[in-house]
Amino acid sequence: MYELMKRLFPICRSITGEGVRETLRILKETIPLDIIEVPTGTKVLDWEIPQEWNVKDAYVMNEKGERIIDFRENNLHLVSYSRPVNKTVSLEYLQNHLFSLEDQPSVIPYVTSYYNDYWGFCMSHEQRETLKDEEYKVVIDSELKDGSLTYGELVIPGRSRKEVFLSTYICHPSMANNELSGPVLTTFLAKWLLGRKRRYTYRIVFVPETIGSITYLSKHMDEMKEKIIAGYNITCTGDERGYSFLPSRYGNTLADKAALNILKTNQMDFVKYSFLERGSDERQYCSPGIDLPVASIMRTKYGEYPEYHTSDDNLNLVTAHGLQGSYNIYQQCLQAIEQNEVYKVKCLGEPQLGKRGLRSTLSTKESGKAVRDMMNFIAYADGENDLIDISNRIHVPLESLYPIIEKLTENDLLIKMPH
Amino acid sequence: MYELMKRLFPICRSITGEGVRETLRILKETIPLDIIEVPTGTKVLDWEIPQEWNVKDAYVMNEKGERIIDFRENNLHLVSYSRPVNKTVSLEYLQNHLFSLEDQPSVIPYVTSYYNDYWGFCMSHEQRETLKDEEYKVVIDSELKDGSLTYGELVIPGRSRKEVFLSTYICHPSMANNELSGPVLTTFLAKWLLGRKRRYTYRIVFVPETIGSITYLSKHMDEMKEKIIAGYNITCTGDERGYSFLPSRYGNTLADKAALNILKTNQMDFVKYSFLERGSDERQYCSPGIDLPVASIMRTKYGEYPEYHTSDDNLNLVTAHGLQGSYNIYQQCLQAIEQNEVYKVKCLGEPQLGKRGLRSTLSTKESGKAVRDMMNFIAYADGENDLIDISNRIHVPLESLYPIIEKLTENDLLIKMPH
Amino acid sequence: MYELMKRLFPICRSITGEGVRETLRILKETIPLDIIEVPTGTKVLDWEIPQEWNVKDAYVMNEKGERIIDFRENNLHLVSYSRPVNKTVSLEYLQNHLFSLEDQPSVIPYVTSYYNDYWGFCMSHEQRETLKDEEYKVVIDSELKDGSLTYGELVIPGRSRKEVFLSTYICHPSMANNELSGPVLTTFLAKWLLGRKRRYTYRIVFVPETIGSITYLSKHMDEMKEKIIAGYNITCTGDERGYSFLPSRYGNTLADKAALNILKTNQMDFVKYSFLERGSDERQYCSPGIDLPVASIMRTKYGEYPEYHTSDDNLNLVTAHGLQGSYNIYQQCLQAIEQNEVYKVKCLGEPQLGKRGLRSTLSTKESGKAVRDMMNFIAYADGENDLIDISNRIHVPLESLYPIIEKLTENDLLIKMPH
Repeated sequence: MYELMKRLFPICRSITGEGVRETLRILKETIPLDIIEVPTGTKVLDWEIPQEWNVKDAYVMNEKGERIIDFRENNLHLVSYSRPVNKTVSLEYLQNHLFSLEDQPSVIPYVTSYYNDYWGFCMSHEQRETLKDEEYKVVIDSELKDGSLTYGELVIPGRSRKEVFLSTYICHPSMANNELSGPVLTTFLAKWLLGRKRRYTYRIVFVPETIGSITYLSKHMDEMKEKIIAGYNITCTGDERGYSFLPSRYGNTLADKAALNILKTNQMDFVKYSFLERGSDERQYCSPGIDLPVASIMRTKYGEYPEYHTSDDNLNLVTAHGLQGSYNIYQQCLQAIEQNEVYKVKCLGEPQLGKRGLRSTLSTKESGKAVRDMMNFIAYADGENDLIDISNRIHVPLESLYPIIEKLTENDLLIKMPH
Repeated sequence: MYELMKRLFPICRSITGEGVRETLRILKETIPLDIIEVPTGTKVLDWEIPQEWNVKDAYVMNEKGERIIDFRENNLHLVSYSRPVNKTVSLEYLQNHLFSLEDQPSVIPYVTSYYNDYWGFCMSHEQRETLKDEEYKVVIDSELKDGSLTYGELVIPGRSRKEVFLSTYICHPSMANNELSGPVLTTFLAKWLLGRKRRYTYRIVFVPETIGSITYLSKHMDEMKEKIIAGYNITCTGDERGYSFLPSRYGNTLADKAALNILKTNQMDFVKYSFLERGSDERQYCSPGIDLPVASIMRTKYGEYPEYHTSDDNLNLVTAHGLQGSYNIYQQCLQAIEQNEVYKVKCLGEPQLGKRGLRSTLSTKESGKAVRDMMNFIAYADGENDLIDISNRIHVPLESLYPIIEKLTENDLLIKMPH
Repeated sequence: MYELMKRLFPICRSITGEGVRETLRILKETIPLDIIEVPTGTKVLDWEIPQEWNVKDAYVMNEKGERIIDFRENNLHLVSYSRPVNKTVSLEYLQNHLFSLEDQPSVIPYVTSYYNDYWGFCMSHEQRETLKDEEYKVVIDSELKDGSLTYGELVIPGRSRKEVFLSTYICHPSMANNELSGPVLTTFLAKWLLGRKRRYTYRIVFVPETIGSITYLSKHMDEMKEKIIAGYNITCTGDERGYSFLPSRYGNTLADKAALNILKTNQMDFVKYSFLERGSDERQYCSPGIDLPVASIMRTKYGEYPEYHTSDDNLNLVTAHGLQGSYNIYQQCLQAIEQNEVYKVKCLGEPQLGKRGLRSTLSTKESGKAVRDMMNFIAYADGENDLIDISNRIHVPLESLYPIIEKLTENDLLIKMPH
């Protein structure tokens, strides 16, 4: 995952344009993505596909002819969707088009202006304070033209028509945790899913944030509302800090339930946010009338870490170890959803485990504890609770219940309730 | 309000008699009250209207001919509903008819004996301890005769037949927080309501406590049970201490919901009491089988402040500022009830606020926060939550939501659900 | 109770055999128990009645001919269900058949091996460490043969066919808190029930733990599921430590509700355990598909006190005082269940208590508190709450509500709702 991220990092993505296409082409080397183009001007829900934006070059040059701000050095230097410019301006004039962060003086902030005719540059506050009162040549060799919005889609069929939905976004330039950790992790989850037997069908999308999820919804909403039983918006999964959980609108879906079970029964250190603190594509997926069951498990949440939306959100912040941890959590979530059946114990009263070799026949002061998880599982395998309910109730991770279910099934003590 | 209270303070009110009538006549100068008389002996629910009680004079005179206790100095000196007396008694005999508070030695307590043949005087404990062992002349020039119980009523029509109910009481002699703050504040709320457009009809009553609310219920119960959607018993609203909330019997009515929303989202300092700690006319309104949705917002609650039911509950304890604070809270509650509609956002997915000028098109690290309240409102305006639900859920006071609703409605993004 | 326990203490009980029969015969002197025998080999749910086990003698003798371990001194010395043995063995060989507790070196542990061909001895760790490397003569004069499992049953009829169920066990050798406190207290509860009018029928069983409750269920399950409204598994009720509460599987039955009400409103010091920490016959009674409403009130819970399942669980640990406290709690629980009706106040609005002599007609600053419990009872006697609900809601013990109900009923102010 980390190697893939390094390759994607330098590309200048935005909500449309060649950066998105190149990113999707690279992901397609790993998983068989469909790449879809939606033309500028298409109405999508309350929105409209904007013009496509591409940049060849952009810089600010001082009187000595030095590129003091250079898009080629760091694509964060240019405000996203800046229109073409080529003129010489005073420092005073230039200042109105500059962005920096006074309280994080060494970083370049990330700024966008998608739906407005505008141009601007971002730079470190430290550098901004050294600017001399002279004339500056400002060049933005960008193009805004009718084109299309690009996204990637992969539907992996399962035994059931019912779907699990994974969404991630591919519209940010060179930033690692938000966003590249998302598409990279999602790519490897897709690859893992492709290689195993699946109960559910998986719908996996790589879209530009907001306009992309709105576009995708405008084309697939009815089908998604009918089929999707749980989904995750995958972002900010690459650092090594504690986990974050962002629920769906009412926090009561299977996606919420599976995620919280995994985080809690594995005793992960995590912060549970309110839906009021959302900020990514769950804004669309969970909106009134759409109501998809979509939650997010992140490392530190967007907006909550100092490097967020700055040049410090880079390949130092994200690590292979950080990505792997998030990947494991998501794998466990998907397994939880796949394995989440309602079980019922077949005998009345406790089964006699001793005669089946499932417990010691010798009873000492301590011997009860050894079969405690199995007996507690049996007590709540009453045809009412699903597996996640039982795991929550008896405080035992699903990973520890799977072998118990296997043993009990082998001994003909357990049945799966029909759906 | 404070001026009106000063005028009402000296009047000797009780559950019947001229003091009540005079009080209602004075309130009638501000609002068009109907004044109703119900004859002695009328059966009202489990009770019966008692005889009417009036006092001309009452005193205890020592051997020197000095009035050592004088009703004309402070009407709390006389136990309410004392029967006529004119005799000379020993100190020992007199002591059995005296009330004072050992742990509040400087105050005159307030004592009543409505439904029993009795007489008595109240005095400060300090004074009581100076009484000499001599003969005392005891005179109570009171009258108990068939007459009537008096109450005031004002029904202010609204667009809807459904009603909001305000009840306050006018049966206590010279005490300011409990009770005059109640009828005074209620009078000004009524005046404010008369001057504005109203969604609901307002039923406002000024009754003697307990027997008055029982009498009113006995005449209007069916109508009240059918029409009233929320109500408040208004009392103890005049001091400057923190607020108190007393819920309805199960704490689950619109009156409870609106009051708690206002107190919480405005971050008022308040104590939430249990219905077990009730002590005023909610005892009747919320009783089994009547079940009206009646709660109370107070300053410090009756029974919970040292001056309660003593001569220290006077015009020093209650202030114009204290009254104004309570008035504002009640205004906000009534507005909450009036404005409490179920809204539904009209578009699917988030609306594009930028193109409507409702948010900046420039997205920086901080720009999301500016529209956070609006986006959170939209997220829960799903046709299920009413406005108070949304305010509670997103922790934003209703005052801040009204302009958001206006903007969204102007932009045709919101509809009000039919009732 | 304590005298009965002293008499029962020396008997060597196990899950079958003469010790159980003798115990039941002694209990039958106090209450008219039916004693039932179920033959070896009978299938009972997932289990089968084992062979009957009886012991005449058992010891380990050293080379000097001294009985260094002697069953006749303490029946805990022998592992329950040890098969007959008569041989001479080395110390090394013997060690594999010895049990002791390193961290409680002075006590003899209690060990069983019901469903396996095995023999063994238990001894203090202190003594074990003094064993010399010599030859030991091991004699177990026990018998395992087809016979029967024995249990006692008593059904005490009430006005209703609906039943309250009490279960206790009689399969442990000389230990006092777990288990003799259980059958002893249950015997005296039964005696008390026999001497009074009963609303409900009482089904009371004295069974060997696990196999006995399974046996009883296999014969009476349908009837029990139809009739039982609440039940308790009575064990560990004899020490003087704080109380413990073990709920039913979902903690939502009348048995749970009554027990918690008694413990809470009487402000008893108690620990509330989870059903996950169960360990006695509620394992059967509350298992899926059986679902009986069975909870437990104990003193310190089995497994939670150091003397548990050792020779220190003796007549010093259990006291007459400890037993009496538990007995009182269970009496109150059973009374709570018997008395638990839904009441409705007959008048609308508060009744006028003064005219009925139920409250003082004089109203002072303090007089309201005297009738507070009665008024709070009336407020929630609305035909919806049962008596335990009201007690919980108004925080008043049932014992204090019974006289209030009597007074209100005498005054024709209260009706009992039909069932």
